[in-house]
Amino acid sequence: MQHTDFAPMVVIEQTTPMTAAIYGGRAKCLQRLIRLNMPVPQTVALSFDAVSGIARGIPLDLTQVLPHFDDNPLLSVRPSSASPDWGGPGAVLNIGLNDVTFAALQKKLGQGPACLLYFRFITSYAVHVARLDADIFDVHDAPDPAAIQAALAAYEEEAEEPFPQDVGRQLQDVLTSMARAWDGTTARLLRQAKGAPADAGLGLVIQAMALGVGKKECGSGVIQFASSSTGLPGIRGRYLSQSQGREALDPNAKALFLTKDTRGPSLEERCPDVFAELIEHGKLARVRLREEMSIEFTVDGGKLAILDAVRISRSARAAVRIAVDLAQDKVIPREDALLRVDAKALSELLHRQVAPNAHRTVLAQGIAASPGAATGRVVFSANDAHAAAARGESAVLVRRETGPEDIRGMHAAVAVVTERGGITSHAAVIGRGIGVPCVVGASDLMVNPRKRTFIGAGRRVIREGDIITVDGTSGQVLAGEVDMQEAGLGDSVSTLLAWADDVRDIGIRANADTPQDALTAKRFKADGIGLCRSEHMFFEADRLTMMREVILAETDADRASALERLLPLQRADFTEIFKIMDGRSVCIRLLDPPLHEFLPSDKVGMRDLAAALNLPVSTITERVEGLKEFNPMLGMRGVRLGITVPEIYEMQARAIFEAALDCGDRVKPEIMIPLVSAKREVEIVKTRIDGIAAAVRVERGNGFSYSLGVMVETPRAALRAGEIAGHCEFLSFGTNDLTQMTYGLSRDDAGRFMSSYVQQGVYAEDPFHKMDDEGVGELLQLGARRGRSAKRDVILSICGEHGGEPDAIRFVREHEFDYVSCSPFRVPVARLAAAQCALTAENRLLRDG
Amino acid sequence: MQHTDFAPMVVIEQTTPMTAAIYGGRAKCLQRLIRLNMPVPQTVALSFDAVSGIARGIPLDLTQVLPHFDDNPLLSVRPSSASPDWGGPGAVLNIGLNDVTFAALQKKLGQGPACLLYFRFITSYAVHVARLDADIFDVHDAPDPAAIQAALAAYEEEAEEPFPQDVGRQLQDVLTSMARAWDGTTARLLRQAKGAPADAGLGLVIQAMALGVGKKECGSGVIQFASSSTGLPGIRGRYLSQSQGREALDPNAKALFLTKDTRGPSLEERCPDVFAELIEHGKLARVRLREEMSIEFTVDGGKLAILDAVRISRSARAAVRIAVDLAQDKVIPREDALLRVDAKALSELLHRQVAPNAHRTVLAQGIAASPGAATGRVVFSANDAHAAAARGESAVLVRRETGPEDIRGMHAAVAVVTERGGITSHAAVIGRGIGVPCVVGASDLMVNPRKRTFIGAGRRVIREGDIITVDGTSGQVLAGEVDMQEAGLGDSVSTLLAWADDVRDIGIRANADTPQDALTAKRFKADGIGLCRSEHMFFEADRLTMMREVILAETDADRASALERLLPLQRADFTEIFKIMDGRSVCIRLLDPPLHEFLPSDKVGMRDLAAALNLPVSTITERVEGLKEFNPMLGMRGVRLGITVPEIYEMQARAIFEAALDCGDRVKPEIMIPLVSAKREVEIVKTRIDGIAAAVRVERGNGFSYSLGVMVETPRAALRAGEIAGHCEFLSFGTNDLTQMTYGLSRDDAGRFMSSYVQQGVYAEDPFHKMDDEGVGELLQLGARRGRSAKRDVILSICGEHGGEPDAIRFVREHEFDYVSCSPFRVPVARLAAAQCALTAENRLLRDG
Repeated sequence: MQHTDFAPMVVIEQTTPMTAAIYGGRAKCLQRLIRLNMPVPQTVALSFDAVSGIARGIPLDLTQVLPHFDDNPLLSVRPSSASPDWGGPGAVLNIGLNDVTFAALQKKLGQGPACLLYFRFITSYAVHVARLDADIFDVHDAPDPAAIQAALAAYEEEAEEPFPQDVGRQLQDVLTSMARAWDGTTARLLRQAKGAPADAGLGLVIQAMALGVGKKECGSGVIQFASSSTGLPGIRGRYLSQSQGREALDPNAKALFLTKDTRGPSLEERCPDVFAELIEHGKLARVRLREEMSIEFTVDGGKLAILDAVRISRSARAAVRIAVDLAQDKVIPREDALLRVDAKALSELLHRQVAPNAHRTVLAQGIAASPGAATGRVVFSANDAHAAAARGESAVLVRRETGPEDIRGMHAAVAVVTERGGITSHAAVIGRGIGVPCVVGASDLMVNPRKRTFIGAGRRVIREGDIITVDGTSGQVLAGEVDMQEAGLGDSVSTLLAWADDVRDIGIRANADTPQDALTAKRFKADGIGLCRSEHMFFEADRLTMMREVILAETDADRASALERLLPLQRADFTEIFKIMDGRSVCIRLLDPPLHEFLPSDKVGMRDLAAALNLPVSTITERVEGLKEFNPMLGMRGVRLGITVPEIYEMQARAIFEAALDCGDRVKPEIMIPLVSAKREVEIVKTRIDGIAAAVRVERGNGFSYSLGVMVETPRAALRAGEIAGHCEFLSFGTNDLTQMTYGLSRDDAGRFMSSYVQQGVYAEDPFHKMDDEGVGELLQLGARRGRSAKRDVILSICGEHGGEPDAIRFVREHEFDYVSCSPFRVPVARLAAAQCALTAENRLLRDG
Repeated sequence: MQHTDFAPMVVIEQTTPMTAAIYGGRAKCLQRLIRLNMPVPQTVALSFDAVSGIARGIPLDLTQVLPHFDDNPLLSVRPSSASPDWGGPGAVLNIGLNDVTFAALQKKLGQGPACLLYFRFITSYAVHVARLDADIFDVHDAPDPAAIQAALAAYEEEAEEPFPQDVGRQLQDVLTSMARAWDGTTARLLRQAKGAPADAGLGLVIQAMALGVGKKECGSGVIQFASSSTGLPGIRGRYLSQSQGREALDPNAKALFLTKDTRGPSLEERCPDVFAELIEHGKLARVRLREEMSIEFTVDGGKLAILDAVRISRSARAAVRIAVDLAQDKVIPREDALLRVDAKALSELLHRQVAPNAHRTVLAQGIAASPGAATGRVVFSANDAHAAAARGESAVLVRRETGPEDIRGMHAAVAVVTERGGITSHAAVIGRGIGVPCVVGASDLMVNPRKRTFIGAGRRVIREGDIITVDGTSGQVLAGEVDMQEAGLGDSVSTLLAWADDVRDIGIRANADTPQDALTAKRFKADGIGLCRSEHMFFEADRLTMMREVILAETDADRASALERLLPLQRADFTEIFKIMDGRSVCIRLLDPPLHEFLPSDKVGMRDLAAALNLPVSTITERVEGLKEFNPMLGMRGVRLGITVPEIYEMQARAIFEAALDCGDRVKPEIMIPLVSAKREVEIVKTRIDGIAAAVRVERGNGFSYSLGVMVETPRAALRAGEIAGHCEFLSFGTNDLTQMTYGLSRDDAGRFMSSYVQQGVYAEDPFHKMDDEGVGELLQLGARRGRSAKRDVILSICGEHGGEPDAIRFVREHEFDYVSCSPFRVPVARLAAAQCALTAENRLLRDG
């Protein structure tokens, strides 16, 4: 960008060339309002370069500025950065007031208003420009000339010079002060946190004051035409006579309503012409600025002035509604509507939330692991959660950490809190998967399951049965019941997502392990199931015992018999899921976790199991002990089980095939092998599964097809993806485990230091939360490239927690993967993010070539 | 190789072109003997192609063969493959015997010898060529003409044709039979196991029989000029009158000594001329064949014939001695001597071994984890091992598995056995490091530490105090005491290794954690220490308590105070190691293991610790519990400790620097940061360590230099080696952890299925044993390349268990790493292997261009 093409200072007129990249967004917006013939007071814009020069001590040539304001000696200065989100120094009003203009003002407005303005200017200049202490001035609600003299004296005493009387000096000092404030460290950090680049510039806007104070009807106000919280159309705002700036919005001000209102007087009644004009300007602004704007205006002797307009602030819900309305009104194209909504914010809408203004008594702050909020009575075990659900009570399950044995309890609970674990701990993953609000890693809670208590902030003891609220969106655990705001996708979200589906060019599937998950996936219009973890079905009570029999079988015959009893149950699970998904793809991952996860870990559990299996407790203890591992994540799991205990995979394959046949022609199941590290593992399992398929075809006298794929989740599988692709139809990259192994970092143990790591900037972000482009990303790229070059039509996808992240979706699209799979509750986010990626890439293409 | 250039059949004469690749090693060797004018009977060699044709049914044109043997109607056929190690069908002697030649032989030799030869030929032909059952023939020590007739009749009865009388038919059948035997499955598998390629060819050698049986002095024998077990010079062998082949070596034969011997008659006395001639031939053969040969000879009517010569078989010890002697005698160049010794076999020489002929009562077979053998009384705890050592008794420590708390006990024991674990389990790594014989994964042993027993083969119960022998070379646990063969590098090994050091072009360092290790490293002439695991020093009793205080400290002040007491101890350790290494490089890795490894895991230990620290047991239990991890391998360890508890690394750095200063100018310590996964980790630790260095320089008023490096052991560190190299001087690749993470495979848990995986060919080899070139190797290459291109002079090395493997050394050399570091006891192996790599590469260069 050639800054030199632009004047450091420009008077904004209808034809003035203007760009936000040089003069900032406020200047740009004011130029548009002026071009629309709105009554904007005389305005001069200073460029980023000019302001940067002022900060470095190069004064502005005021002879180029002041003559433009000869008619109107009082000025305001407001910041104008490239984006309104980046903040900036506060506006300074009434510049130019001195003893001379004060005298003139007294004549024009009367003593009271004139004194008020001068007093305010002196004190505000003293504090914000001359940087004096505020407490050197007495406080006056209605200052008189004596108060002015006292203020001027106090200024002179403290500043060791008289209050500047020269308008040029005043303006120059205001500009310098604002320019330097922009360069301050705090301001820089704050705006960088909001995405500003390190060298973001500040423009300034000098405007003739429309006073809003005077003898006839004078005042100021703010108006907008849609609700910031819902996005529904409707005039909102206030007007306050004899006021300036945003004073009308002060809740204590005796402000008027804008439209006629039973609750009190309104601008519409007091100044119908002004009001009508304002409405006209508002309509025009919405259409021509293609946005819902909030307009700041002044009435000066019954005459309307438009001082400024900004995008209205908006909740996620309102953002969607506004974007969809604008598109449906043909103000903007649908593509723009899609790009205007923050995909991540969508997930807020899928869950009940704590009401924005609710009173919060925070017991602990943890990691926001699964969004939404719920209130219930504290329980400390999965069984108690289940019992509470059976009694129709809402239970919040509080655990040190959760494991597979807690899954049923988590389903039964309205919310889950764990003391340990990170964003991809067991509780977090399951919580997101089933849409239960969840806070993990609330490490200050001292959960004592034996005493059935935990300790909250201020050493407050919470007992079983006490009521708490879990805010999984903010990560807070709150005492008692708290006001809620209901969930609901709403029509406009559905409309927006339907538009997104027209645009996106990658598939979005859901991770769904149960029929219930599958229903959620279907409700959120997932293209299919990308990851059905078949083992989750084994954790239900009746199956768990059979699974334990499989594991502890002493002979092949015993094992076969236990598996035979599991087969119909597993087949029924798959049948139900296939039916729900109704022809959409379903990718089932064969058994993955280490076998000891299915065995009891405490004495009671072992005793029960011994009784159930009619074996001595010592045998159970010994076998459980024998299956323990040092690092279960890196142990006997996944395909290693499939190779060493082939009967389990064989039973699973049979259940899948038989279920597919039971559901008719449209089902072509996808079977995925987990934890592969060598090509030969795939060959061996493939041979066995092909054998089962052949047997089922013969038994049923009916053909069916299926595809076999590999879950790429070890670095070695990614590196060897070329030779692995030769033996399968699809490669699905499991970014959770791949991240664990690439970093050498267990997600269950990372919580202990991750926050300190991210705070110190060791990792820019938690790699389990935001996919690591550099390390894990390189392995994904390598794997995808090698897979594709070995087999052109191999299907590539990412499953795992990152799947729903907009960043991951961008990555996936850039590297030509076919789909992502994510928690069902993230599917809407992913659908929108995928559409946005496609649009952005298209725009880039259009722009670049 | 153009086989067509070579005749399918060739008469071996002094000038015959001959190559082992076409006709096999025996033919080649015979040609050399003939060229040396030795009295070798007429010999014809058949090429691999000819024999392969015979196997496929294309008969040899005997008109080209038989005329060469007109003078001598009896023939032998012997195999001649490319390498003598690959085996082959047995020799067939006396071909050509039929009723006519039998009659002639009776006249020449007398009836007895003639009958013996004919009877032997009929039965041997029947069994090995016609494939008849041996038991159709009666057994005769001294067959007479009637026995011959009976044998011929039995043959005719069973073969349904008369015994073939035609010499051509006999020879053709013998050749066909031998050619087909070579193609049999068993023979092929056997030779492939010894390294033969799948298409290895067989040549055959047809030789005129020197009978060794007859009226004047006739007989046969074998002579060699150095010991097969020690390699020491000296004539060995036997001679038996009236014998053929290798009959003289039968221990029951009444064979003569060769040289004059007090124990009995000798060939030297019986036939001094023949003996003298034999000695001359032997000397010539050694010099001209440039090898210690075993010569097969016949005396026929007082006339010497040389039938064959082969390399003498040899133990590892003998191989070294022979190679060095040949080089010192200028028979071969030193480079050849270096290439002739199998580097891996060297490690046998560094340890006592079970004597080759010792009687073994095997209690269990496990994994040979650390070579050497030792006998002692069984103990079941580290403490008991220590107590035994204190009493001067030899103890064998038997454990389910070992952990850091057992290290002292392992030092005290003479050998270690574990029921669990693989080749890189804790016990195995430590065992190799300290040179203690070790068998791991002896999964049949049912170790019961409570009862203080384990169960051996045949359900034999072994109790504490029973004597057993551990053979860490074979992986066997043996009952009782067993004959041993003493260790000792010996002069010739030292000589060979000194030559190796002249040739090798990569560094060989040792992994050494203690002064004792450092002494071993120095004794084996390591170039330095490549990996000094500083935490091992904390496991000694007094330090362990202090370390525990550091870990459990509740305030920074408490921690600082405990670290202050550790500092002088750690400094003293480093001082001692620096002094021992005397200016050689020492690379110290900062604390790596998770903190809970330092804490007690049982109730007694916790009670003791509570007493030592004057804290309630419940506090200790809670803290220990709190530090437990799901996957310690992937948890809070390595640099993650360094970032979150920086005081420990700071203490260690200070100890290193102060120790270096105490040892004078020559020490430039190398400090290595473990488990790095992001560049920023290195920056942060580097800044802190540089700070400590600056402080120490000021305090001591003395300068010193050091270098900082990174242990690359996560896949991510390998991928990001470029940016990491920018912040350090060296990158040392830890292949143990890198293998674990690349495969997603914990070495401690892999034992459960590794043998089944290797047996099924899922993995070609245990990747913890032999480095995985494809996956881990690619990460090493990537990391090395990126490191080098970011920083030209960054030092690259491999530390970890693979470091000493010849394959890994070849890899390291090819990819231009600077050094490897391995267990001190593998240093000699590595030195030789490195020399061999350099020589092989040089030869390849010479050959290729």
